Amino acid sequence: MKKYKKSDLETYTLGTTLTLEGLNKKVKYAKRVYIHSKQEKNETYEKIIKICNTNKIEIIFSDKTINTLSDKENCFIIGVFEKFNEEIDYSKNHVVLVNPSNMGNLGTIIRSSVGFGICDLAIIKPAVDIFDPKVIRSSMGAIFNLRFTYFDSIEEYLEKTKGRSYYPFMLKAKTVLQDVKNEGIYSLIFGNEATGLPDSYLNLGTSVIIKHTTNIDSLNLDNAVAIALFEFTKNDFK
Amino acid sequence: MKKYKKSDLETYTLGTTLTLEGLNKKVKYAKRVYIHSKQEKNETYEKIIKICNTNKIEIIFSDKTINTLSDKENCFIIGVFEKFNEEIDYSKNHVVLVNPSNMGNLGTIIRSSVGFGICDLAIIKPAVDIFDPKVIRSSMGAIFNLRFTYFDSIEEYLEKTKGRSYYPFMLKAKTVLQDVKNEGIYSLIFGNEATGLPDSYLNLGTSVIIKHTTNIDSLNLDNAVAIALFEFTKNDFK
Repeated sequence: MKKYKKSDLETYTLGTTLTLEGLNKKVKYAKRVYIHSKQEKNETYEKIIKICNTNKIEIIFSDKTINTLSDKENCFIIGVFEKFNEEIDYSKNHVVLVNPSNMGNLGTIIRSSVGFGICDLAIIKPAVDIFDPKVIRSSMGAIFNLRFTYFDSIEEYLEKTKGRSYYPFMLKAKTVLQDVKNEGIYSLIFGNEATGLPDSYLNLGTSVIIKHTTNIDSLNLDNAVAIALFEFTKNDFK
Repeated sequence: MKKYKKSDLETYTLGTTLTLEGLNKKVKYAKRVYIHSKQEKNETYEKIIKICNTNKIEIIFSDKTINTLSDKENCFIIGVFEKFNEEIDYSKNHVVLVNPSNMGNLGTIIRSSVGFGICDLAIIKPAVDIFDPKVIRSSMGAIFNLRFTYFDSIEEYLEKTKGRSYYPFMLKAKTVLQDVKNEGIYSLIFGNEATGLPDSYLNLGTSVIIKHTTNIDSLNLDNAVAIALFEFTKNDFK
């Protein structure tokens, strides 16, 4: 098996806990599991073996494959999964990322989004590959609770999601986050890490700003998304 | 010049914008500036040259030094700074990090903390080195607006900061973040990325939880800090 390429039909989970999470949540997409000779026979290991046996998933003991796929020295189990793709639910709240370019950020955003109960992610191309093992690892397995869809343009997304409230997050926005009074279904929209959203988004729904001092140019993207998620969902988590 | 080591008396800024930020904010600690032959003579470059000339800071044209110090191909200016250390202000609000271990996280936390107007950071050892160029880069220069102090133990920190409110953030806490009614000076306290705060912190001040679904084990540390900062400072940013 070779290192991940975007064109591959399979992706993989780097690590024991992450692999167990994948097997628990998406076992029907699991193809096989690689185990390194240094893996301890602990509780997580036993759970993985049991799921594999129950579901007839091949187990391969191969130090070489694990050394090829992982850059980290403490990765001893890798799960291989068919790329799963479950379309977003158009009746639910969404996070929308326009041209995200950083894999670590994308994984962290998936983690906080699923954490706050928004399990539908729309991604506007061009964008980073959500199946890259770095994204999966940085999501800490939250990706297995996520539905997601790539769109060629924001217009295509808007066409399919009429009748909801749009909140583009922008430094030029007029409405301060803590003043937003949302009712009904919504989409929280964020731009690229370096460039943010273009000015044209000021005309879409209610543009929102997370105010901060002038000592920084902007917040880190995944920090901004986490703050927005917290504020929009806080009445659900009392 | 060699790659950064923790025992060095100097640190450096990897990149043109970051170097300008350091020169603008901490010029008295600037020792010299390295410039690569590929650096464009743009506005930022001209500003750096001007500050160096005005303050008699040595400019060295050396591709070799830049290639040695930077792993990235698009880094063309590096500023070298004496390690600056300004003690935290005990009359101000603080962020307190107990045993932070990830350099990228620390930099991002500095960025959001300074962004929300909390410019005093207490770090409880053992902890990552705040002067590592990776932390400086990930702070996007916000570190130049920060006062910070390392403490050998939380007891040492508490001893020096009596008469304020302490808010340790923990998954076992009873008070939900959105229910906190703070008055007066405060310290927001966060544990290590992997382990969080020990149970003993439940007895310190008011322990706080950022509630989320059970689909994730915890939030990313810098996301949790960003959310806490937003919630505690939101009345300052209307």
